[in-house]
Amino acid sequence: MSRSLNIAVIPGDGIGQEVVAQGLKVLSAALPQDVKLETTEYDLGAQRWHRTGETLPDAELEALKGHDAILLGAIGDPSVPSGVLERGLLLKLRFAFDHYVNLRPSKLFPNTATPLAGSPEIDFVVVREGTEGPYTGNGGSLRTGTPAEVATEVSLNTAYGVERVVRDAYERADSRPRKKLTLVHKNNVLVYAGHLWKNVFDAVGKEYPEVTTDYLHVDAATIFFVTQPERFDVIVTDNLFGDILTDLAAAVTGGIGLAASGNINPTGAFPSMFEPVHGSAPDIAGTGKADPTATILSVALLLRHLGFDAEAVRIEEAVSADLAGRDGAFRTTEEIGDALAVRVAG
Amino acid sequence: MSRSLNIAVIPGDGIGQEVVAQGLKVLSAALPQDVKLETTEYDLGAQRWHRTGETLPDAELEALKGHDAILLGAIGDPSVPSGVLERGLLLKLRFAFDHYVNLRPSKLFPNTATPLAGSPEIDFVVVREGTEGPYTGNGGSLRTGTPAEVATEVSLNTAYGVERVVRDAYERADSRPRKKLTLVHKNNVLVYAGHLWKNVFDAVGKEYPEVTTDYLHVDAATIFFVTQPERFDVIVTDNLFGDILTDLAAAVTGGIGLAASGNINPTGAFPSMFEPVHGSAPDIAGTGKADPTATILSVALLLRHLGFDAEAVRIEEAVSADLAGRDGAFRTTEEIGDALAVRVAG
Ligand SMILES: CC(C)[C@H](C(=O)O)[C@@H](O)C(=O)O
Ligand SMILES: CC(C)[C@H](C(=O)O)[C@@H](O)C(=O)O
Repeated sequence: MSRSLNIAVIPGDGIGQEVVAQGLKVLSAALPQDVKLETTEYDLGAQRWHRTGETLPDAELEALKGHDAILLGAIGDPSVPSGVLERGLLLKLRFAFDHYVNLRPSKLFPNTATPLAGSPEIDFVVVREGTEGPYTGNGGSLRTGTPAEVATEVSLNTAYGVERVVRDAYERADSRPRKKLTLVHKNNVLVYAGHLWKNVFDAVGKEYPEVTTDYLHVDAATIFFVTQPERFDVIVTDNLFGDILTDLAAAVTGGIGLAASGNINPTGAFPSMFEPVHGSAPDIAGTGKADPTATILSVALLLRHLGFDAEAVRIEEAVSADLAGRDGAFRTTEEIGDALAVRVAG
Repeated sequence: MSRSLNIAVIPGDGIGQEVVAQGLKVLSAALPQDVKLETTEYDLGAQRWHRTGETLPDAELEALKGHDAILLGAIGDPSVPSGVLERGLLLKLRFAFDHYVNLRPSKLFPNTATPLAGSPEIDFVVVREGTEGPYTGNGGSLRTGTPAEVATEVSLNTAYGVERVVRDAYERADSRPRKKLTLVHKNNVLVYAGHLWKNVFDAVGKEYPEVTTDYLHVDAATIFFVTQPERFDVIVTDNLFGDILTDLAAAVTGGIGLAASGNINPTGAFPSMFEPVHGSAPDIAGTGKADPTATILSVALLLRHLGFDAEAVRIEEAVSADLAGRDGAFRTTEEIGDALAVRVAG
């Protein structure tokens, strides 16, 4: 009997196409022989929007639901007004598919350049809330474009939404050797949302007596990211703070060329979506300079999410070995993909 | 004829007392002979709250208005619920006195340890909006403490509020050699507030043709803070992003022991307030370990704000020389203050 894996692919814009091609190559190489890989490409992003004015039509949103998971390259192009594709496509997917766990691991691989002196040991994971906070699009503006304009952004937070992501973070912390969970918020200023987060964090914590907990304001957290990143194990935080902290985390662990992420619906009600943290980098699109490693590590997260743990580990070990062997010589996007596919298959 | 300088002093909590004492010492040493320094201490902070339940009574708020400026040490203690003193005292002062420019310079002084490899050249200033955004306390919670809780935080942004701080930032950029101004926001997600900021930024920019401008999303900005901090000259940003970025800036320029700030009302309608970026650090209070340099650099900002430019420069040069001469040997809070006072007086 043969199994099959049914993956939706959204290459998107800029370097998206190039890195996704390498991601799929490594995915094929990693899968057990008896698993048939089926992929369906969805033409979404800047070009589609220019051509048709559409970002994510209902029919395609519906079709995407039928897949086991989604692999996304990158969305965004300077020719599209800021916010159109982010809100209309990327965030629409995260919200429609209830991706309430935005999982972003940060690991400083051996031999990887970090801007930090002394190459500290870094191995933590940020569990970013993905469906609430200041990302709900709840806001507006009055007298727009006049000197009397008022614009609001409303951060929405629910016990329902906070509890489920906090619980996921405790589970992850509990399964890691150090068993440490840090809540990051700004509860001395954002007192309503902050107290909700803190109260839920403390309450759920009672069910995980082995997990050591800690709280940091987001401003203080950025300090520790550069002075003491080894203090972190699992971090749970809101949508916006998570966005900011994970770019900083990527920077200190060798750059966004390596940062993977998963937009996960742990219940399985909707397909989860995996994407590199980096953007579409239109300035280097087509030059072969894009590092596909972040996408390939996102493929590892995809595999682990679907239960292919051993295959995920194989990819991560291949990346680790590949990085350890890098000598600074330039390799194209495809060369890196090929090298990793060979290691994974071998 | 003799002049006088009438300063309100709020030592506050933890190390606040200790660092403010050194700040005042250096202020005395810096002032011209014919200027009489008058100080009035205000007993505000955690102890006062424990004793009386008061954070900032109207009578004291009124009295504070009569001063030329305010020097604040640090506010906050773990024994006080998070948010009480921040909202009731610190933010109340910033809002009541319309401190719409929160000025935070970041300079990597010679011989100062930074967590960044290669000691890049860092010399930028963040102009953080101080009276709007997510800091207005506009929010609430419903069914608090139950599994059905909903909590909101509303970011309020007005063309009035954004325009005045953006204009201040252009003025500062225009007066610096590099004349570069970067707007940091997140206008691909926070589209209402973000577009207001971007539109005002572009419109005011027409009046400053010599200033080069740039826009970065807040997440990307954190990357450049650690990989390319030398690219920044003046940064203008909203209240929350400014909070986060200035702690990170402090960390990369040698720690919050050196980070100064001014809460400025440029119109002079209310006294401006100067304070170190660091908190009350109750764990080291009374040990003599607190570095008063951030407070002393805040005194320099105070002097410059009041027109004592030469005196401000003298303090900054003294700090620079003192840091260049540091050999890693431990010096107490008072020893550092004494050394700086001597240099400034000399
Ligand atoms: C492109 C943008 C909407 C997105 C976000 O803010 O979540 C990105 O920065 C990310 O972190 O995935
Ligand atoms: C203490 C807190 C309210 C304050 C802020 O968030 O503004 C502090 O972090 C700062 O940066 O001055």
